Amino acid sequence: MSYSIVTVSRQFGSGGRSIAHGVADRLGWEYYDKAIIDDVAMETGFSKEFIAAKGEEAPGKTVFSYGFETQGVPGVMNGMTTHDYLWSVQRKIIKDIAESGKKCVIVGRSADYILREMDGVLNVYISADMDFRINRVLTKYGDSEIKIEKRLSDKDKKRAANHKHFTDLQWGFAPNYDLCLSSSQLGIERCIDIICKIVEEG
Amino acid sequence: MSYSIVTVSRQFGSGGRSIAHGVADRLGWEYYDKAIIDDVAMETGFSKEFIAAKGEEAPGKTVFSYGFETQGVPGVMNGMTTHDYLWSVQRKIIKDIAESGKKCVIVGRSADYILREMDGVLNVYISADMDFRINRVLTKYGDSEIKIEKRLSDKDKKRAANHKHFTDLQWGFAPNYDLCLSSSQLGIERCIDIICKIVEEG
Repeated sequence: MSYSIVTVSRQFGSGGRSIAHGVADRLGWEYYDKAIIDDVAMETGFSKEFIAAKGEEAPGKTVFSYGFETQGVPGVMNGMTTHDYLWSVQRKIIKDIAESGKKCVIVGRSADYILREMDGVLNVYISADMDFRINRVLTKYGDSEIKIEKRLSDKDKKRAANHKHFTDLQWGFAPNYDLCLSSSQLGIERCIDIICKIVEEG
Repeated sequence: MSYSIVTVSRQFGSGGRSIAHGVADRLGWEYYDKAIIDDVAMETGFSKEFIAAKGEEAPGKTVFSYGFETQGVPGVMNGMTTHDYLWSVQRKIIKDIAESGKKCVIVGRSADYILREMDGVLNVYISADMDFRINRVLTKYGDSEIKIEKRLSDKDKKRAANHKHFTDLQWGFAPNYDLCLSSSQLGIERCIDIICKIVEEG
């Protein structure tokens, strides 16, 4: 198998984003994450902040709470909710990147599902144990009023619900990925090594 | 991390057993699978066939259907169902093996959960896509009256239900393992390579 894309799904605080960055750096490939959000923002006119906050969270029961209107109907655009519309735009951008033949690492955004029909895609999932994640999130983002365990579990639930909503697949279920690694058990550097070796060996 | 035990959980037809065997061979470690069944059989007097059939299947709602009696109470032994009793015996044997310091690979039997408090255990889960599994099962075990897709999904469901019953954990959920590999994507030999390299590097 000649790989040209690595998708990385990850638990919040697992270091999945750092691993994805490390893989892209080592392979000399493009890295997509916030860059996708920026592209979406430019194409849709949605504010970057809105997309950064909503891009990977679960669709709410209503979109009224998002607090903006499009085409006169609160939270509905072309008959879709804003969340569904955002998904469709992200999906298009990810497909365009993949079809351009650009070798790249894509973090999150259910890219594994979006590119499921393509050859040469390695789908990776990164998890880590609770202590590792707590330590990493507190070091990286600092403490907040919400208990750290709750922040982690809320984020996991939102990502899982979002993935389920758009793909009907269970987020984090091993058979849905090619490779799942525990960064707390194996270490960030070794996760990068394992992924790069698979890609390089083809 | 200095590893002394590798546990291998696997989807039926994924080649997980062959991978476990390959890892044990390459590392020069003991391999436990049917050997555990034999030990259980000897210790309990249960027939080998009964244990082979029931050892990894889901606990039924009643044990009457197992068709034998112990201590005059059908399917109940020392206040436990035969299935729970079998679990407790398997658990004891796996713990004894681990505590003996013997370096080994253990397939199935929820050994990952049983040894969760021990250091030096690498927990691996092997999956594969449907075509790969169908092909492997038909080649290895031949066809039967039951449709192959149903055989695979029944077996998965039974293993998952069994694991959930005894561990309260979701079978196949990536964060419950250190390493999950798709044998259909990566190939049997490469799965062996990846696991052995992690163990050898420590």
